[in-house]
Amino acid sequence: MKEYKVIEVKRSIFEDNNADADRLRQELREQKTFLLNLMSSPGAGKTTTLKRTIEALKGEMKIGVMEADIDSEVDAAAIAKTGVRAIQIHTGGMCHLDADMTRQGIKELGTKELDFVVLENVGNLVCPAEFDTGSTKNAMILSVPEGDDKPLKYPLMFTICDVVLVNKCDTLCVFDDFDKDRVKERILDLNPKAEVIFVSAKTGEGFDGWIEWIRRSVKEYNS
Amino acid sequence: MKEYKVIEVKRSIFEDNNADADRLRQELREQKTFLLNLMSSPGAGKTTTLKRTIEALKGEMKIGVMEADIDSEVDAAAIAKTGVRAIQIHTGGMCHLDADMTRQGIKELGTKELDFVVLENVGNLVCPAEFDTGSTKNAMILSVPEGDDKPLKYPLMFTICDVVLVNKCDTLCVFDDFDKDRVKERILDLNPKAEVIFVSAKTGEGFDGWIEWIRRSVKEYNS
Repeated sequence: MKEYKVIEVKRSIFEDNNADADRLRQELREQKTFLLNLMSSPGAGKTTTLKRTIEALKGEMKIGVMEADIDSEVDAAAIAKTGVRAIQIHTGGMCHLDADMTRQGIKELGTKELDFVVLENVGNLVCPAEFDTGSTKNAMILSVPEGDDKPLKYPLMFTICDVVLVNKCDTLCVFDDFDKDRVKERILDLNPKAEVIFVSAKTGEGFDGWIEWIRRSVKEYNS
Repeated sequence: MKEYKVIEVKRSIFEDNNADADRLRQELREQKTFLLNLMSSPGAGKTTTLKRTIEALKGEMKIGVMEADIDSEVDAAAIAKTGVRAIQIHTGGMCHLDADMTRQGIKELGTKELDFVVLENVGNLVCPAEFDTGSTKNAMILSVPEGDDKPLKYPLMFTICDVVLVNKCDTLCVFDDFDKDRVKERILDLNPKAEVIFVSAKTGEGFDGWIEWIRRSVKEYNS
């Protein structure tokens, strides 16, 4: 038997997604569930980052994960192996999740007793940035192989994120034109409040800072 | 003075994009201009691939390039340096180009005497796959760092492409879980007619096959 459900979300009936997102945020606050919306390009390392994050935190918080994709179940299957509650959301071809689609996932996952829920959004730097999911915080992953010019080309995504993980730092040896200082400067130019953390989900490099960011954010949310 | 124009395309007035795409394809056929729609995730190497492609072919065909992005002009500036005609298209936040937006670019670029025009679409594996641009052929780039599971997650993109370049093969040494045979099998499962070519735009590895694909396709188009 599969250790995760697969659900097909329906298109939203709400015209005002921002108002609906605020409602969902309030519902989650009442049940003290912190929802992190995790976004990136395809293949930037969202699932690998999540697996390592879960290993670091599952002893101290109750965690759930919603994996959104156009198709396939590979991510939910990978997450379910870590032992936390996981579901796969299929978007029916949609390029992003909005608040109502997120709520459909939340309902299926069952989050009342969960402390920390991650929504792994569809891999896409454009559309997910335009739709508030109702999350408590937004995080994105930019991977080194994508290049340090991405904040120039996809500015909205970098503007709406509370934290940016620059992942695959173990490959800086082969991507030697990627400039860490320059990418940080470009992100902070767009969003001076963003936290920028350099990591490698493969080796664990830099993960202390990321795990600490989650602990601090969840603690502040509940205080 | 800049060696390229920057234009802001307007949203389409046509309800039926497929019919409009067929019209544009016919217009391009009459003027014997081959239009290649080049798609990929952000940072898969579209511009670097194009620069090397132009160097290989600019002595034998008249080439033009339309660079589409949400923001920035870095790609058009890079292409203009190769000496071919280039424009930057800003999509006003849109996540893809449709046929009418492509036509607006074609008009600004001026393509009547051009043999081979490339539209570098917005970096996105979801939305551009849903909109026929009116191109003669569709190409996509999947880069090794993105992982060999992408055909499972973004099947439509792989289904609509005539050719798939698997780029950044020079980094297989660090991405040692990427299986070339497996990715090819997954692509061909979705799209048995696709040509799959393994390349590195950085080192030039595999480019002979790609350049030959373009020469053959343009020749067939004009015969």
